[in-house]
Amino acid sequence: MQREELVIVDNIEKQAWKLLEDAIIYYQDRPVGTVAASDRSQSALNYDHCFIRDFAPSALLFLIKGRYDIVRNFLEETLKLQPQEQLFDAYTPNKGLIPASFKVAFTNEQEYLEADFGEQAIARVTPVDSCLWWIIILHAYVKATKDLNFALQPEFQQGIALIMELCLATRFDMSPTLLVPDGACMIHRRLGIYGYPLEIQVLFYTALRAARQLLICAGDEEIVIGIDKRLPLLQNHIRHHYWIDMQRLNAIYRFKGEEYGEKAINQFNIYADSIPYADLAIWLPKHGGYLAGNVGPSQLDTRFFSLGNLMAIISSLASEQQSQAIMNLIEAQWEDLVGTMPMKICFPALEKEEYRIFTGCDPKNIPWSYHNAGNWPVLLWFLTAAAQKTGRKKLAQTAIEIAQTRLFEDEWPEYYDGTKGALVGKAARRYQTWTITGFLLAKELIRNPNYLELCSFEEFDGENASQACDL
Amino acid sequence: MQREELVIVDNIEKQAWKLLEDAIIYYQDRPVGTVAASDRSQSALNYDHCFIRDFAPSALLFLIKGRYDIVRNFLEETLKLQPQEQLFDAYTPNKGLIPASFKVAFTNEQEYLEADFGEQAIARVTPVDSCLWWIIILHAYVKATKDLNFALQPEFQQGIALIMELCLATRFDMSPTLLVPDGACMIHRRLGIYGYPLEIQVLFYTALRAARQLLICAGDEEIVIGIDKRLPLLQNHIRHHYWIDMQRLNAIYRFKGEEYGEKAINQFNIYADSIPYADLAIWLPKHGGYLAGNVGPSQLDTRFFSLGNLMAIISSLASEQQSQAIMNLIEAQWEDLVGTMPMKICFPALEKEEYRIFTGCDPKNIPWSYHNAGNWPVLLWFLTAAAQKTGRKKLAQTAIEIAQTRLFEDEWPEYYDGTKGALVGKAARRYQTWTITGFLLAKELIRNPNYLELCSFEEFDGENASQACDL
Repeated sequence: MQREELVIVDNIEKQAWKLLEDAIIYYQDRPVGTVAASDRSQSALNYDHCFIRDFAPSALLFLIKGRYDIVRNFLEETLKLQPQEQLFDAYTPNKGLIPASFKVAFTNEQEYLEADFGEQAIARVTPVDSCLWWIIILHAYVKATKDLNFALQPEFQQGIALIMELCLATRFDMSPTLLVPDGACMIHRRLGIYGYPLEIQVLFYTALRAARQLLICAGDEEIVIGIDKRLPLLQNHIRHHYWIDMQRLNAIYRFKGEEYGEKAINQFNIYADSIPYADLAIWLPKHGGYLAGNVGPSQLDTRFFSLGNLMAIISSLASEQQSQAIMNLIEAQWEDLVGTMPMKICFPALEKEEYRIFTGCDPKNIPWSYHNAGNWPVLLWFLTAAAQKTGRKKLAQTAIEIAQTRLFEDEWPEYYDGTKGALVGKAARRYQTWTITGFLLAKELIRNPNYLELCSFEEFDGENASQACDL
Repeated sequence: MQREELVIVDNIEKQAWKLLEDAIIYYQDRPVGTVAASDRSQSALNYDHCFIRDFAPSALLFLIKGRYDIVRNFLEETLKLQPQEQLFDAYTPNKGLIPASFKVAFTNEQEYLEADFGEQAIARVTPVDSCLWWIIILHAYVKATKDLNFALQPEFQQGIALIMELCLATRFDMSPTLLVPDGACMIHRRLGIYGYPLEIQVLFYTALRAARQLLICAGDEEIVIGIDKRLPLLQNHIRHHYWIDMQRLNAIYRFKGEEYGEKAINQFNIYADSIPYADLAIWLPKHGGYLAGNVGPSQLDTRFFSLGNLMAIISSLASEQQSQAIMNLIEAQWEDLVGTMPMKICFPALEKEEYRIFTGCDPKNIPWSYHNAGNWPVLLWFLTAAAQKTGRKKLAQTAIEIAQTRLFEDEWPEYYDGTKGALVGKAARRYQTWTITGFLLAKELIRNPNYLELCSFEEFDGENASQACDL
């Protein structure tokens, strides 16, 4: 890189850090989070909230920079928003949930934090991922600070236990995956991801890994036994039933239907006619593969979802071989999955009747826009982390180079549209905090792969899993 | 009716009773249930099982005829199949679940009952409705026999409590409805009824009404408080958000999208383009209406589902006015909803792309066949009960007249196909037990409306609900 370019890039980073500083939310004079976006050209709606999922890359950055106070305050304040009681009620948030977002509000000139569990959100979507991200952030905090005592405080142990109870509670179905309604994660509008969407399963797995370490250190036994039972089942289920590569595609293509009984090979009764097998047979490279978006009765969603696939690599939910195959696919189908802005939230877009049926004619999720195969700069950090974990650093470097000047020039938009991400998103805010932090975190992870340890996990070996406190 | 016809009809009934007798399953020389079908021309698969949902009309008939033993045995044996323990596990049935079905099996010449919780079923669907039907049947048993002590036995109280815990457990979302995967009820294959399908919500409401009475008589307080909180919320939610008539359709048609905040009128962010408003505006009669199939984020399934709508009348989940409006609709759109065989399981069929997307190309659920808008004779009893409850007996009489000779001549098929139900179902078994019992039960309910009390409930008034044991 030329010296001039280096100066420009350096200035971009400096601006990004400055913007992040400006995005910090203060509550009773203490920093507690970051706003979703600071675009003064548009009305705030809920973009002045701190979203739990949006704060994750902020948290990792603050931990890397030794700004522990803000993450600690965030964890303490959000924990206070978690409902502790439940009396068979409804229309109030359930025990254990962490809100989607919070903001500083005022009553009689007194500050207080107002939580939103979805009751204010458009379409009343449920933030299932919040409680999972919360545990992942807590685990990262302890990793970074070595301050285990923070997590050992009774109210934190109670908070973790409540989330685990909520996630591991008795349910109707028998699969180790979590059943959630549509729009329960980063994709928080209807997009046909009801049932057992990949993103939730991967975050669930990662949160179980994180909770396991925190609970072992606290000397908990009962919940750890439950986690140790669930982890291998969940891992096998995802690795087997969600995996798609040429070999698996061919097996699915030749599935028999209507098999009855426990020995059925086509357990979920998938009909090949329902999947775009011809397109996939061209799209899949020889040594590439990925985890499907969803698996259920007669349902196999073959869309590629980036957050789920990348986080599966980072958390070792995907096997080592599968992780390499996912990176091979991203490299081979770079134009489709990265294009001019890393990277697509999912691929391909729902179009025509599929768009109409799965989104309910959502004008924000038109084909190749927003959640429906838009390009999201925040995904840059997931891509970089996954690339570092698999030893594919070059891919991440290329992605960062594609992103940086453009993000700066476009004033850090929330998302990009079009098949290659060439358009600034139709309704994208500027100065979106997780666009900024996604870029900065990617930079940090490229410079120092050790930071990966804050959010990544090694292969889980159910039979030889350590029962010692490793934090 | 002519004397000759009367003799024919009398013979049809006699044959039906004989067939029901032959369908009884014996276990250790005691009658415990009825097989799903006794069609010797086809392989049994799981049609030799006793399905919990299929047994409901059998149970009501046996109770009417004073054959209490078989219902008592059924309740005792199925209760033994309910898992009592749970240790955060998966791939094993959850605590509190009642299986979809059971059959008599042998090991070393010893009889035992083998349960199926979905692990053997095609596509591994979850039988959420089983535990709800089980409580409804238990309540009917106590009503019929006045043998309250049977339900007061500790193991029965424990069984009820486990089901209530499963249904009222803390969950991720905040609506009073139950989130279930696709195919979790009578429609047990994928048909786009994931989320909060009407049938499950209505059975949930009915089971809560039944459990409430049984638990009050046992002196339980905690669960009854929970039920008393849930019932009005659930009732209001369904009556408001699921209701469709011309007035409501017009309101939805004019909804604004993207409303943010607690005061949003279009709470679920429904886009009018996603619903067939023009067809519905023609189809809906002036004084008619019905409960929608499903409501969720940007989702309003406007299909008419018969079991849910009729059971909502029977259980008083629908208001008195709504109940009359539903019957008005059935009368006005008789050709579509009843046609030549009472009655459609749902209307209209999913066709073309909707069929492909929602069913996953299921060849059994092609348009106007099986679950996808086939005609199901078992629904005759629900129609008759709802007609009696609303004082619309004439409608039920007409329906029975349409059904009886044809069912006899066609050898009691499971379902019929075609827009009017003119064809015997493509893969329908003959001698389907709940076709037979649906017909017989309709006959009994027409003769003696008092039998309705076994499965119906009066309006629930949350503020003045009796806390006395009324059983």
